[in-house]
This record gives sequence, C-alpha cells and structure tokens, in this order.
Amino acid sequence: MRVKLMDQFWEPRIRRTVQETIPYQWKALNDEIEGAEPSHAVENFRIAAGEQAGTFYGMVFQDSDVAKWIEAAAYGLRHFPNPQLEAVIDAVVDLMGRAQQPDGYLNTYFSVAEPEKRWKDFSFGHELYCAGHLIEAAVAYYETTGKRAFLDMMCRYADYIDRIMGPESDQMHVYCGHEEIELALVKLFRATNEQRYLRLSRYFVEERGKQPSFLKEEPGFGGTFKDRWFELDYHQAHAPVREQETAEGHSVRAMYLYAAMADLAIACEDATLADSLRRLWDHLTSKRMYITGGLGSQGHAERFTVDYDLPNDTAYTETCASIGLVLLAYRMLQIETDGKYGDVMERVLYNGMLSGISLDGTRYFYVNPLEVHPAVARYRHDMQHVKTERVPWFGCACCPPNIARLLTSLDTYFFTQNGTEIAMHLYAANESEFDVLGSVMRLHTETRYPWDGSVRVQVHADGPIDCALSFRIPSWCRHPRVHVNGEALAPDAVVERGYARIRRAWREGDEIELYFPMVVERIESNPKVRENAGKIALQYGPIVYCLEEADNGPDLTDICFPAESEFAAAYREDVLGGVVVLSGEGLRSDPGWEDELYRPVARRKHSVPISAVPYAFWGNRKPGEMIVWIREK
Amino acid sequence: MRVKLMDQFWEPRIRRTVQETIPYQWKALNDEIEGAEPSHAVENFRIAAGEQAGTFYGMVFQDSDVAKWIEAAAYGLRHFPNPQLEAVIDAVVDLMGRAQQPDGYLNTYFSVAEPEKRWKDFSFGHELYCAGHLIEAAVAYYETTGKRAFLDMMCRYADYIDRIMGPESDQMHVYCGHEEIELALVKLFRATNEQRYLRLSRYFVEERGKQPSFLKEEPGFGGTFKDRWFELDYHQAHAPVREQETAEGHSVRAMYLYAAMADLAIACEDATLADSLRRLWDHLTSKRMYITGGLGSQGHAERFTVDYDLPNDTAYTETCASIGLVLLAYRMLQIETDGKYGDVMERVLYNGMLSGISLDGTRYFYVNPLEVHPAVARYRHDMQHVKTERVPWFGCACCPPNIARLLTSLDTYFFTQNGTEIAMHLYAANESEFDVLGSVMRLHTETRYPWDGSVRVQVHADGPIDCALSFRIPSWCRHPRVHVNGEALAPDAVVERGYARIRRAWREGDEIELYFPMVVERIESNPKVRENAGKIALQYGPIVYCLEEADNGPDLTDICFPAESEFAAAYREDVLGGVVVLSGEGLRSDPGWEDELYRPVARRKHSVPISAVPYAFWGNRKPGEMIVWIREK
Repeated sequence: MRVKLMDQFWEPRIRRTVQETIPYQWKALNDEIEGAEPSHAVENFRIAAGEQAGTFYGMVFQDSDVAKWIEAAAYGLRHFPNPQLEAVIDAVVDLMGRAQQPDGYLNTYFSVAEPEKRWKDFSFGHELYCAGHLIEAAVAYYETTGKRAFLDMMCRYADYIDRIMGPESDQMHVYCGHEEIELALVKLFRATNEQRYLRLSRYFVEERGKQPSFLKEEPGFGGTFKDRWFELDYHQAHAPVREQETAEGHSVRAMYLYAAMADLAIACEDATLADSLRRLWDHLTSKRMYITGGLGSQGHAERFTVDYDLPNDTAYTETCASIGLVLLAYRMLQIETDGKYGDVMERVLYNGMLSGISLDGTRYFYVNPLEVHPAVARYRHDMQHVKTERVPWFGCACCPPNIARLLTSLDTYFFTQNGTEIAMHLYAANESEFDVLGSVMRLHTETRYPWDGSVRVQVHADGPIDCALSFRIPSWCRHPRVHVNGEALAPDAVVERGYARIRRAWREGDEIELYFPMVVERIESNPKVRENAGKIALQYGPIVYCLEEADNGPDLTDICFPAESEFAAAYREDVLGGVVVLSGEGLRSDPGWEDELYRPVARRKHSVPISAVPYAFWGNRKPGEMIVWIREK
Repeated sequence: MRVKLMDQFWEPRIRRTVQETIPYQWKALNDEIEGAEPSHAVENFRIAAGEQAGTFYGMVFQDSDVAKWIEAAAYGLRHFPNPQLEAVIDAVVDLMGRAQQPDGYLNTYFSVAEPEKRWKDFSFGHELYCAGHLIEAAVAYYETTGKRAFLDMMCRYADYIDRIMGPESDQMHVYCGHEEIELALVKLFRATNEQRYLRLSRYFVEERGKQPSFLKEEPGFGGTFKDRWFELDYHQAHAPVREQETAEGHSVRAMYLYAAMADLAIACEDATLADSLRRLWDHLTSKRMYITGGLGSQGHAERFTVDYDLPNDTAYTETCASIGLVLLAYRMLQIETDGKYGDVMERVLYNGMLSGISLDGTRYFYVNPLEVHPAVARYRHDMQHVKTERVPWFGCACCPPNIARLLTSLDTYFFTQNGTEIAMHLYAANESEFDVLGSVMRLHTETRYPWDGSVRVQVHADGPIDCALSFRIPSWCRHPRVHVNGEALAPDAVVERGYARIRRAWREGDEIELYFPMVVERIESNPKVRENAGKIALQYGPIVYCLEEADNGPDLTDICFPAESEFAAAYREDVLGGVVVLSGEGLRSDPGWEDELYRPVARRKHSVPISAVPYAFWGNRKPGEMIVWIREK
C-alpha cells in the first residue's frame, strides 16, 4: 500500500512539518532556539558516549525526544528526500552507537546520571519506554533508507532485554511503567521477522497487571507525592489486561498499551485481546473522551478520573494522548472495519491532536483544554498545567516530536487493506496504490475535505479486480449519498458498520462519488457531563469549532446562542491560513453591572455577531480567551 | 446593651449549641468521640504542664481549639448558667496556668515539641495567633463570670509579648503570619483599659506589610511547597495595610486582619484605616464573595484567586472565613450604619456560615462549596479539600469551635448603638435593652423572620427618650414598608444608606412595624463570573437555596428552569427541622442517551417537580449531590 497525499489541508501541513518543524526541532534538541526551554537531549548522548564532559540534563526519558525526532524525520524522507538531513540522522545514529554499552544497553540517563539504578525503577525510570522509541525510530529509518546500522543497534538492545527479562526463572519478571516498548517490539518483529521480539512484546503485555505487582515494591512507585493517583491503575497495572474493563490511569500510557494489545491481537490472532480492546474502546469513547478526541481529565497524574468527568478548563488532554488515540484507532481498524474507530480517528486528527502544533509548525501545546481564560489559568493552582499561549519548547518535550512523527506518517492512516477489502477511513485528495492478489489497483481521490464533503474516487486498474472498496460514512453526516459510475446506491443496501462496502469487479475508470453534505451542527453532551449542561459545541463536518477572544472580545462565557439562531459557514482564505469560519448571532449581557456581583435576574441581552474558528487552530493569533462549549438559550 | 433572643430560628440553634455542641466538642477535644479524628488538644496542655508524659500531637495551633471552645462556652454561660460547665472551664484554665511558663509564654507546641523554635516562625508558627485566641477566651470568660484568673494569665502573656515585640530597637519587629492577636488585644484593652494592649495591636497592624518583610527571611516562609500562592500576599503582608487595595491571600487571615483594622479605626478614631477598609470591603464583596457569603476560591493556600473567579465545586469557602466576614461586617457597622455591611452580615450568617454545622450541632463542614457531586469530589485531586458529608471532627479543627463561639455570641451582632442612635441590623424575636443618655430603653421585637418578613418592634421606656431607631431595610426586599404607630412612613423620607432612620422622642408603647415582603427571587451573577453564566440561584428573603439529590434525584446539573416558571414557598415543619421549601417545575433531559457521549442537539426535555431547600442545611439527610446555581432555559 502506498499513499500520496495531494490535498490542500494535510499535504501543506506535512510539507511544513518536514521543511520547518523538523529542522526547528533539531535545533531545539541541540539547544539552539533562543528563549526556549533547554533540551540537552543530543548533548546527553555525547556525554554518554564519553566524548564530552558534563552531566545529564532533562527528564529521565529525554532520549526519547531524539528518537521520536528521528522517526519523524525518517517518515518525512519518504516523501521529501533530503541527503543533508539523512547525514544528520546518520551522525546522530553513529553517536548513539558510541553511547551504546557493550551489552547493548542504551540510555543516557542511566548511563550518565544513575548507572547504579539501571533496571531498578520500572515505575518511572522509562528505560523500556525509551528503548521502545529508539526501536520505532530505527525501524522507520531502516524502512525509509534501507540502512541497517540503527536497526542492528536496536536488535542488539532488544536481544539484551530479551535475555534478561521474560518468564524464565533466571529472568526479571517485569514490564515498563510507561508502555511503549510493547508496540515497538511488534514493529521490530515485522521489520526483522524475528519471532522473539513478538514473544517479548506479548510477555510484557501479559505480565502486566499480575498481582501482586512488582511495581509496588519499588522505591519509586507512587510518584512524587506517593498518592492515590499514582497507584497501580496509573500504570494500567491494576489487573491483567484481559480483565481490564475500563480505561484508567495515565492516558498516554493507556493508549500505548492498548495500541500494543491491538498489534498483538492482529499478529497473534488473539481474539481475547481484541475483545478486551472493544470493551475498553467503548468505555473510553463513551465515558471519558472530550469532543476534540482529547483524553485525560486531570492535570495531577495526567490521567483519567471518573466517568463523565470532563472539565473543560482544567482538562489535561495531552497532545501525546491524542496521538495515542490515533495509534489505537488505526489498529482497531486493522482488526475490524468499523466506523466507530474511523470516526474517532478523524475526530482526534482534526481537533485534539492538531491543536498541539501551531500553524507555522514551531509552537506547541502540551495540554489542550477546551476552555481557557488566561488571567484565571495563569493564576489558579489547578490550572498550572495549562499554557495560555503556544510555546517554543517544553522542559518535558514529549509532545512536539510526537506530533511531528504523526504528521509525517499521516498517509499511513488513510487506508487499511485486509486481503481483498480496501477500506478508506480518511478523506483528502490523494493517489494510492494497492496490491490485490497480485494485481495493482490505484485510486485517485479528489476532494476539498474537510471544507467540503464531496469526494470523488477514480479507479485505475489494468484489468478487472474483484475486491471490496469500503468507504467510511462519517457519523457526523446525516444524509450521505454514494454513487458508483453515476448511479446512486441505497445507503441501507451498502452501508454496514459505518462503511459503504462495495464489492465488485473494479475496472479502469470506475468512479465512486461520495457526498457528505456538511452543515453546521450543534452538538450536545450526554447530560451526565456536568460541565457541558445547557451548552452546545459547533461542528462542521469533522471540525470542532471554538470561539476566540480575537474574534469575539473577552468574557466569552457570557455569550449564548438562541436555540433558533442560524450559522453560516464560509471558507475564508485570509483566516488562519484558510479555514471555514462559522458566523452567526449570539447574545451577550447588557452592560450596566458595574460593581454588582449578584442581583435579581434582569435577563437583558443584546445580539452580537459571533465568529467561530476551528478549535485546532486556536491560539495562533493574539493571546486571549477560548471556549468550545457555548451556552444555548 | 443587652439582647435576649426569643425566636424560632436562632434561639433553638443557640440552645442546641450550648446543650449539645459544647459538651460534644469538649469530648472531641479530649478524644472521646469514637470515629472522629483525634484532637489531643487538652492532652497537649497536660503534657506542657509536665503532668503527663507524651508528645505533642496535632496542628501547631491546636491550643486555639481549646481557647475557642472556652470562649464559646463562656458566651453560652451568659444565657444558660451551668456550674458544672464552669467548673470544667476553671479546671482547664488552671491546667493552662500550670502549663504557662514563668515569663508568661503559653503555647504547648513550642513548649513541648520545638522549644528552640519559639518566635522563630511567624509565617506558620501561629504563636501570636494562639495567644490571641487565648486572650479572647480569657476576656469572654472574665466578662461572663467576673473571674480574673484566666484574664490575669493572659495579661501576663500579653505583657511579655509587649516587652519583646514592638518598635523599639531592642524589640523584635514582627507580626504574626496569621492575624488574630490584633483584634484580641483590642478586646483585652477594652476589658482592662490598659492602653499598652491597644498600642501593641496597632503596632502589629502597622508593622504589617512594611518592605522588605522579615517574613521572607524565615525558613518557614512560603509554606510547604514554597510556591507563589504562599508569597507575602498570602499573609496580607505585601503592602502596608493602608495601601492595600484588594482583598488578597488566605481568606481567614484577611478577615481577621480587617476586623482588627476596624477595631483600631474605632478605638483610635483612625479615619485612614476606615478608608482602607471601605475600599477592601467593596472589592471583597463585589469581586470575590460567593452568594452564600463564602470566601476563598481555591483550596491550595485556602485563598482568594483573581476577580470574579468563583468556581462552585472547587470552592474553599472555609467556615472560619465566613465567620471572619461576620466579625468584619459587624465592626464596619460600628464604624458606620450602612446597609451594605448589614446585608452581607445577614447573607453570611444565614448561608455560608451556618452551612458549617449540622442541624444536630455535632457534624461539621470545613469547606462549603456551592456544588458537590460526591463521586467526582471524592476522586478529583483539585477537590480533595471538599467533604461530601458532614464529619464529626477534623484533624485541623479550627472551624467547629469557631462556629460555636459565633452562635453563642450571636445576640451581640443584632444591634449597634452609637450615642443616641440604636440600629437594628438583624431580625429575630428578641428583647433588648439600651442605655440612652442614662435612660433605659427596651425594645420588644416580634417576627417569624427569616420565614416571614413582618417585624413588629414595641418600645418600652419610662419616659420619652429622644433618639434615633434605625432599622436595616434588607437589600433583597423590593417593596419594604415602615409604619410607626400605625402610620406609614414614605421610604424615601426615612431610608438612608439602607436603614430606615427614625428619630423622635420615643415613648412607652410606641410601635414600629416593618414589612419586608418575601418572594422567591431568581438571582443572577455578574456575567464575568464564568461558572454562573446562564444560571440562577433561588433566594427567599435572606436565604439562599440549593437543590439536593435527596429531593430531586441525581444528575442535578441536568436540571434547568424555564425562565417563566414559578416557585411556591411553603413552610414545612417536617423538613430539616422546619424550613420554607421552594417548589416549582424544572426540565430534565429525556432518557435515551445510553452510551452516547455527544450527539446533535435534540433538546428533548420533560418537566419534573423540583424542591429547593436552604443551602445552609444541605447534607443533613442522605448523602448526595447538591447545587446552588441552576441553569435557566
């Protein structure tokens, strides 16, 4: 399967990621961005290699920033060859090789800062987590360039881990407090066809949650404050994975675990893991997911809280958790073509993931709340995780390279192919190519999605190819239409589990037309979501909108929409790089309050024009307030 | 001035405080309440007196719990003589005498646990704070019983403090991180007529906020986490008191400081202090006060945050801060008879103060939020200060004896007398007696307030007494009427700054009738209060109402009121010991959501009967949700 995006929404973003973000992040990793928080991540490798004096600086998982950056760059190189960049990567891989220890171990923190603590703090040491990101980077770089050096280094590391950890009595019976290596090992297995990597991944996943847990015996267990939010469920280690019923704990950790479970469900054809995932998915997306696809309701321990607890202004909704949800959703689609996975993947891509990076690709949000009042957020203790403006880098910089690697690999999320079924999950103009039982099928897709819901797909094939083409019918669309070669298909006849599934002998020139009429939808929350009671969010196609102070002035929470008011949607080239802007009438309180704090209801309101812009692009203009959920009168 | 309450609202509560709460709290202070958090407060004195082995236990200010309890008991003894109780107090005073050090110092923590740290931690040591509460207790006990022992002990303590602290070069230039001694010293001055206590109070108040502050040099400064919420403003030490423009910091600290400033403004006839207080009062009550009179928007550092930031579910709104606001409001009324002070005093007494104690007088709230969802509050990190049920005692038990001393002294808050003006601020059936230029005037007041707004006041005087009788016209009342001897007075003619002021030669049998018609008012917040946008609170007379799960089922935030719906008010003997219950129709979402989290707006609502009960009495039935601010449709 090869996919080449040629659209106006994603392609320019991916290009910018390659041309602006990746060079920018390399500078950040080398501490060359003025005014940004220091990284020291490359320097740490130099120190670990013994080539420079100094002490380790940064998070215990600082290595993973470099790994994710290499992975992002490697994906970018597939579409935008760049020998200079490749030379930079080769050099840093060389450096890593010199920092790698004779037994294969590679971790700058535990080599430089606390060598005596190697493999002593699985709760928070992040050693296997960093190994996982290095492995993912190595696989990506190998797959793009065919160069084996990094891959071989990582095989040595994985072999070392495989020797000392596992089920045998002379091995450590452990798993990492932060999942990541599990899904990385599946990638390494796929790249090398070495079964032991798959076995080790499965071991880690199945060891997890056995009681009593070794994690509880570790001095580091419980986190800084040793409190209830850092108990076993924080690490998804409160029960064996097949017995976990609900999405719990640190939300990034949870997503990475579930993604690995999905990989194993596929690679090992393990139906019990798939069953667990369906349960966890339904719980996650029906009880604990923001409308943006954001995950994690609480800053403290960066975690899920309780069902329907989705506060907007104190949300954690880490960019990495959104990325993790994309990883999971796509893997679920690999397990089964069900629209519920594709719908969520689309939701998070256009909203809670994309909000993590600025239009120019060099400023970031780590936390993606759905309501920001800068003066309050800057002051309140329970909002200290909220940044009111995008920043150039973070002391804990997991998100920026993570979003880069997702964007540069975004083409890989558009389709799945399962034998003779090709399913299209996301819509954007693209050229794609598939091997169907030895025949080459190419699809040429034209659309202005997400700003317009018309999609035209042309089939190119040398001869007739008997296969199913399945197209996701977005759940936000009330009246979808599907035409094949000009003939309308009755949705009831072709749509199953959220996909129009059309099996036939496809021939050169066949054309599928999909019409997903976009209107401005007012979305309400389940009434159990306390924070959103009486409020609506505006959605246009897959895009969730917000109000910004830049368009609507301050005190956004004072605005409400009459139930009968209409919104107009219009593409505006001049706004935020070109977006559909929603315009309508809202109501605001009359002035005249002055120094009163409480008074008998007067209900004096006046009408004001309101503009809404895509949530993902908030904070790209002057600083100010932002809200997603708006009161309805 | 003597006031004897004879009403159906306060008098039974005060009686219960004397008969149930005070004996109960004595048991709590002696660790005799099963299932309650330990106190050890009396035991600490035994250990400090060298009469028992053991170590100090509790908060550094544990002594003040006993002091406030003695003060509460002393006020109670005025109305309900009780020789056994007096003997108990005498015994504990004796014990304190034996624990007092030869130089007059009395503090069990710094005598037993850390003697080397005496006067070394003004930020958090609370030594002068504890001294202040002991002084208040001693003055109260002396004024009730005429017994001087405790008072003399405290004069020795105060004299010692006065020797070592003050403006001279050989004295410590200090003040306490937690204000309290300042107002206590004014009481001691009034009880003893010793000017040096007034001078010392003034010194502490005027030393406060001088820059650079000695507090910043202390190791303890900055609190546990040494963070920005524990900076100088936490202690109201960021600027000299006359230059403070806004109410900042720890809200209890702030109230006690302002109360002392008011005492000094009166005692020293200091107009500059009064000016500062007017400014602080207006800021406090127009930007940072909950509708219940609660203060303190944030649990972390128990403090004010920023203007209009009044979250309901994470509110701190400590019972002690409400009590402090009563202390302040009454003192402001002593400075000037202005309805804005009386209105707030009434608001906090009936709502945010009274919520701190259960109907039976033995269960308490420390924190008084305006919205509680138990499952969420029990889980969320930013709601850990919130108790979802009233508890029998606290590890930090400042509030229970504080509310007891306020209730047993409540009669002293009803009137002020300033020469020939007698002003009545609160309404409840009572008999009161005043000395007006040597003549005795007695007022006999009949009313069912706060359940009914009719008040009849009869004058009893041997001869005509030329004076002004002023009656607060509650700001919640839209159409007040005032009659004297059956004749209606035009409000415009007699009402000035919130009081009907009637000056004449009052004679035996004169009768004033006040009519404050009570209706169910829907109150809205200033639109800048984000959390209350689109919501109303129900108020009936001075009482703020709430919805409880006990009456209305779960998911209270789903309820909204149509703008046109009516509420009926009816006194219900059988509810919560007899209260006016409000009944009306609300709307709830139709069922049928099941596992959906978001969907296009359906706006299917159905009508449900809704009952609202006084906020102050919430949590006296089965545990469950509670909200004050209710959405309006």
